[in-house]
Amino acid sequence: MARQKRKGLFSITLVTAAFLSSLAFAQVDNNGSVRQEPIIPLKQEVKVDTQKADLGRKLWFDPRLSKSGFISCNSCHNLSMGGSDNLPTSIGHQWQEGPINSPTVLNSSLNFVQFWDGRAKDLKEQAAGPIANPKEMASDHDLVVNVIASIPGYVEEFDKVYGEGGVNIDRITDAIAVFEETLITPNSRFDQWLRGDDNAITAEEKEGYELFRNSGCVACHYGEGIGGSSFQKMGLLEEYKTENLAKGLADFTGKDSDAMFFKVPTLRNIVLTYPYFHDGQVNTLEEATKIMGRLQLGRDFSDEEVQKIVAFYGTLTGEQPQIMMPILPPSTNETPLPKPFSAD
Amino acid sequence: MARQKRKGLFSITLVTAAFLSSLAFAQVDNNGSVRQEPIIPLKQEVKVDTQKADLGRKLWFDPRLSKSGFISCNSCHNLSMGGSDNLPTSIGHQWQEGPINSPTVLNSSLNFVQFWDGRAKDLKEQAAGPIANPKEMASDHDLVVNVIASIPGYVEEFDKVYGEGGVNIDRITDAIAVFEETLITPNSRFDQWLRGDDNAITAEEKEGYELFRNSGCVACHYGEGIGGSSFQKMGLLEEYKTENLAKGLADFTGKDSDAMFFKVPTLRNIVLTYPYFHDGQVNTLEEATKIMGRLQLGRDFSDEEVQKIVAFYGTLTGEQPQIMMPILPPSTNETPLPKPFSAD
Repeated sequence: MARQKRKGLFSITLVTAAFLSSLAFAQVDNNGSVRQEPIIPLKQEVKVDTQKADLGRKLWFDPRLSKSGFISCNSCHNLSMGGSDNLPTSIGHQWQEGPINSPTVLNSSLNFVQFWDGRAKDLKEQAAGPIANPKEMASDHDLVVNVIASIPGYVEEFDKVYGEGGVNIDRITDAIAVFEETLITPNSRFDQWLRGDDNAITAEEKEGYELFRNSGCVACHYGEGIGGSSFQKMGLLEEYKTENLAKGLADFTGKDSDAMFFKVPTLRNIVLTYPYFHDGQVNTLEEATKIMGRLQLGRDFSDEEVQKIVAFYGTLTGEQPQIMMPILPPSTNETPLPKPFSAD
Repeated sequence: MARQKRKGLFSITLVTAAFLSSLAFAQVDNNGSVRQEPIIPLKQEVKVDTQKADLGRKLWFDPRLSKSGFISCNSCHNLSMGGSDNLPTSIGHQWQEGPINSPTVLNSSLNFVQFWDGRAKDLKEQAAGPIANPKEMASDHDLVVNVIASIPGYVEEFDKVYGEGGVNIDRITDAIAVFEETLITPNSRFDQWLRGDDNAITAEEKEGYELFRNSGCVACHYGEGIGGSSFQKMGLLEEYKTENLAKGLADFTGKDSDAMFFKVPTLRNIVLTYPYFHDGQVNTLEEATKIMGRLQLGRDFSDEEVQKIVAFYGTLTGEQPQIMMPILPPSTNETPLPKPFSAD
């Protein structure tokens, strides 16, 4: 019965993937690809309100969004390190061990929903979460608004960018989300190959890609994001053994049938976003590939095959966003003080 | 007896300051000042090996210099926040409460010695400290060298910048120190005034400066750094009451007579580097000024005087370094893993 259910899901997965892939092919804008592949090159630029993005950049780096005054968005989505923290699970307020691996913020605007369990519909909704999560930044929205509204440099900028109406959590999370939209990594060598440059990837990398595609990895890792477009069950054919308590979509919907369904992570910049999986328990791409082959595809990749596929992953690193550290407007005598060590 | 000793020290302080001020006037390069003042404008540029500085910038932002993989130099000397963390004392490995306020890294190359207690002779020697301090980054020099040497992107850059010889702690701390030398904040409004622009500061700010100078604050806060050039006793005429255990120079020399002697902090960018004093227990410049007047100068500044002096401080904010976030070379399968939560 359980096995049947798994088989059923597997079929649905493949059908869904085929359907979505055909959608991808059908769309008019394939971002300049000259090859008919289930992976599409990343757009090369994004159009956003640059004033909002610049305000969002300040908030992104501002640890005053946390109760301690020590943790900023960038602490766990470090733009120097592939938009991740390169830790199994994140470190939160007072060094609490986070429940799940911090996903990269790079190209996250491409995700069809946000968080591993998809509980936020977009980046703006997502940004509100960690600020108030007692295990992460441990502040609350009222406090953060009070902090930011006590700082004249911010108040002036919010007025300038959003018009009269002052600082509120809606504007704060909107600015952060707009900044995040700018964090794309175009022109990876694989994208160059998709756009027709035969020499952008090596023969081994190309073989790795063909293995990746023909083995069925693209059933989940497809499109512009090479992932981020669907929920899939972690441990489809064989249970994924982990001590991590996260149950994915089921944590959001409360349905047992959604257990272990996670948003498929992007493979863009995967060389930078170690360690791997929602529990961050796998340190190497070789091991991650072997596990995914066995659990999701029922396939035991040989060491040689794994080597080729991992070589292909190396072609997925795009141009990293060049971000200037913001100069943050200073607090004033009226700014609520950070509370790094208090118990309340 | 104790009182006499204090009086004696006070006289020495004034004599020393007068001597050093005269030295400052005597030097050929006064950085373009046209006024005969005990404060000298900051140099407008520094000449360093830009390749070393760029490597140092990477190391500065790299949390792999810490045992946890979470804390970088920038965590406590945040270049978005005046080169400080704006916390009373810093947060270290596993959220340990640090013993002392994190001093700004901005203009720190001007300090005659490093650390509050002067135990490091220069920035390079200083940089080696926090990496291996179990209360701060909690790594050790061998481990850090192993980590950096496991990363091809770093190895290549060290070879290019320093020549053959590989990665070692001497080169790591040298590169960080060279980067830190670039972190100056020239052209504050006060420096513009020193260089002859009468309109660079307001009448109130000028009155505040005159009060600051004529009250004796310049006895310690003088020169290019407006501090950072001498040790002075915190609580010269009246004891400074604090629960902080640091004893300043005495912690380094072991001499009781050095107790509570600290390196005078720079006042450049003081509006950005709150909270104040070695224990970070004073949140406002108004309170800090009142305390310093009473304890160091035996003077009770009126609220009006304090307001003017604080207005003067506002003229000491210079141009902040514009720093591009580095893209860090990724770890490899051979890189020692971070240990954020392990007890050992």
